[in-house]
Amino acid sequence: MEGWYIEKGPESDVVMSSRVRLARNFKEYPFPFKMNREDAEKVVERVKDAILNRSIATSDYEFKDMLKMNPIDKQALVEKHLISPNLVNGRVASAAIISKDEKVSIMINEEDHLRIQCLFPGLQLDKAWELCDKIDSLLEENIDYAFSEKYGYLTCCPTNLGTGIRASAMLHLPALTMTGYIRGMLEACGKLGIAVRGIYGENSEALGNLFQISNQITLGLSEEEIINNVTNIGNQIINQERSLRAELYRQNPYRFEDKVYRSLGILSNARIISSEESFKLISDVRLGVDMGIIKNIDVAKLNEILLYIQSANLQKIFDRTLSPDERDIKRAELIREKLGIN
Amino acid sequence: MEGWYIEKGPESDVVMSSRVRLARNFKEYPFPFKMNREDAEKVVERVKDAILNRSIATSDYEFKDMLKMNPIDKQALVEKHLISPNLVNGRVASAAIISKDEKVSIMINEEDHLRIQCLFPGLQLDKAWELCDKIDSLLEENIDYAFSEKYGYLTCCPTNLGTGIRASAMLHLPALTMTGYIRGMLEACGKLGIAVRGIYGENSEALGNLFQISNQITLGLSEEEIINNVTNIGNQIINQERSLRAELYRQNPYRFEDKVYRSLGILSNARIISSEESFKLISDVRLGVDMGIIKNIDVAKLNEILLYIQSANLQKIFDRTLSPDERDIKRAELIREKLGIN
Repeated sequence: MEGWYIEKGPESDVVMSSRVRLARNFKEYPFPFKMNREDAEKVVERVKDAILNRSIATSDYEFKDMLKMNPIDKQALVEKHLISPNLVNGRVASAAIISKDEKVSIMINEEDHLRIQCLFPGLQLDKAWELCDKIDSLLEENIDYAFSEKYGYLTCCPTNLGTGIRASAMLHLPALTMTGYIRGMLEACGKLGIAVRGIYGENSEALGNLFQISNQITLGLSEEEIINNVTNIGNQIINQERSLRAELYRQNPYRFEDKVYRSLGILSNARIISSEESFKLISDVRLGVDMGIIKNIDVAKLNEILLYIQSANLQKIFDRTLSPDERDIKRAELIREKLGIN
Repeated sequence: MEGWYIEKGPESDVVMSSRVRLARNFKEYPFPFKMNREDAEKVVERVKDAILNRSIATSDYEFKDMLKMNPIDKQALVEKHLISPNLVNGRVASAAIISKDEKVSIMINEEDHLRIQCLFPGLQLDKAWELCDKIDSLLEENIDYAFSEKYGYLTCCPTNLGTGIRASAMLHLPALTMTGYIRGMLEACGKLGIAVRGIYGENSEALGNLFQISNQITLGLSEEEIINNVTNIGNQIINQERSLRAELYRQNPYRFEDKVYRSLGILSNARIISSEESFKLISDVRLGVDMGIIKNIDVAKLNEILLYIQSANLQKIFDRTLSPDERDIKRAELIREKLGIN
C-alpha cells in the first residue's frame, strides 16, 4: 500500500482528496456506446501504446484489461474510485491504465473513449490539473481528438462538452453537518454552479460526513477558470467548516473530546464492525485528529483505512472471499492492525 | 487505597464480595429509636473502649463520630457499604469503628446498638463469619447483650431476632440477566428463604448486573447453618452463571468479544461518564476479564473502580466539591487513571 492517500496534502484537516478528470474521444471512432468490438480493441491498443511506451511520470503504470480481471479486483478499483462501475460493465473491450501510486487512472472505453483522471491528497486541484494536462498533451501527440471549434472537445454526454473537465474535491464536513449549516452550504453551491454529493453512501447520502464538490459547467470557461472556481468555493467551505469546529469545541470542550474519544475507543476495540459504522466512527476520529485532540493518529492513516475497509479491498487484503459476517470481523481486525492496536 | 477490594477472593469471577453482619443490643439501654442522648453517648463510649483498647485483628481501627464528620466523608462510607444511611441520619449520638482495610465496620446506635459487619472479597462467608464471631465474643466480654433463652439475641426489628445474623454475597450475574434466566433464579431463591436485591441502583434495580443474596431467616437456625445455606445457594448460582457465560460465548464468540471490547473501548476513552453508564460498562469489562478475553485488567481493579467512581468517594479523591457535570468529567478521568490509560 503506497498510494496517494498515504501522503498528507494541503488543507488535509478538511479536504481528503482532489480529483481532475478529462473526457476525450477519438475523432475516427464512434462513441463507445455504439462502437463495434474491433474499433474498441483498437482504441485500447492505441492508448496503451501511447502511455506505456513513454515515461510521463515518475511512477510506473499498470495496464488493467477489464475482460481479464476477476470481479473482486475490479470492484476493489471501483471502491478506490480509480475506475467507474460503467467501465466494469462495458459492452465492448475496456481497460484502465493506473499508476502505481494510484494518482493517475486512464479509463478506456468508458462513456467516452478516454477518461483521464488524476487524484491528489488534500486540496491540490491545480496540481491534479497540471498532471492531467501533461498526460492529455502526450496522448494528443498520437491521437486525433474529436474536437469542434465551436463546442470544444466533443463528449458522449453534453454535460461534458467543451473542456471535458470535471474538477472535484472530497471534503470532510462534520461540523457543517452537526450544526445543520450544511443545507445552506448545499444551496449556495448550487447557485454558484457547484454540484455537491455525498460519497461512499448508497443513494449519495453523505456517509462519514464526506461530500464531493465539483463543477457543473464544462463549457464557456477555461480549464483554469474551472479549477479556480472549485478551489475558491472549496476554500470558503473549508473556512466555514473550520470556524464551526472551533465554535463547537469552544462551546463544550469536554463534550467534544468525549465524542471523538468514544468513537476512537469503539473503533479500536470492536471485533465486529460494519462499513457504515466504521465510516461514522472514522469521521469522529478524523475530527479529533484534525482538532489536535487525538495526537498519535495520522490523517493519512485514516484515509488509507477508509479505502481498505471496503468489501472488495478487504477481501483482496485477506486474499479470500469473505461472507458479509466475516467481512465485519476482518474489517475490525484490519482497523486495529492499521491503528497499531493489539 | 488499600481495602479488601484490592484482594481477589475465591470465585471472584462471579462473587464480588461476602458480608456477614450481626445485630446486637445492650441489655441495660433502650433500643436506639427510643433511647436518650446520654445513654446513646454511653453506648458509643463503651463500644469504643471495648474495641480500640484491644488488638482484635492485625489491622488498625478508626473511630468515626457521625456528629463530627462532614457530609461527604459520611456519604463516602455509605457508598462503600461501611455504614448505612440510617446511621448517618440517626436521632442520637452515633458512630462507626472501621478497620483500615475496611474489612470490619462496627456501627453504633444504628437501628440496633451494635451492627458488627465483616466484608471479604469473593465468596468467603465462612471467613467473614469467623471474624464477626471473634469480634462479637470480644465485645461480649465487656457488654451484657439483650438476650432471651427463647428468642436468642433481641433486636429492634423482629426480622433480625435470634442469631441477629445477615449473611450476604454480592454477585455479578450478567449472563443470567442477558438470557433472562435471572427471573427463575429470583423465584427459586425466594422459595429457599434467600432474599435477592439489586445493589447500587435506586429502587434496588440491578445496576451493573450486581445482585445481593442474603438469608431471610435469622431465627431457628444456627449461624453456621445460615452461612452454609447462603454459601450453597451462592455456589449454585455461580455454577449457573458460569455455564450460561460459556454457552453465550460458544454461540457467538465474536459477538461476545465485540461486546466486552466495545465497552472497554468506551470506558477507557470517555471524557464524560455517568455512574450508571460506568456500572454498565464495567459489568461488560468484568465479564470479559472473567472469561479470559481481556487479559491486562485485574478484577480487583474493577472492584476498586466501582467503589471510587461514586459521587462522594470521587469528591474525596479530588479533594473538593464537584458539581454533577464536573463529577462526570472527573469520573472519566479517574477510570482512565485506574486503568492505566493516558
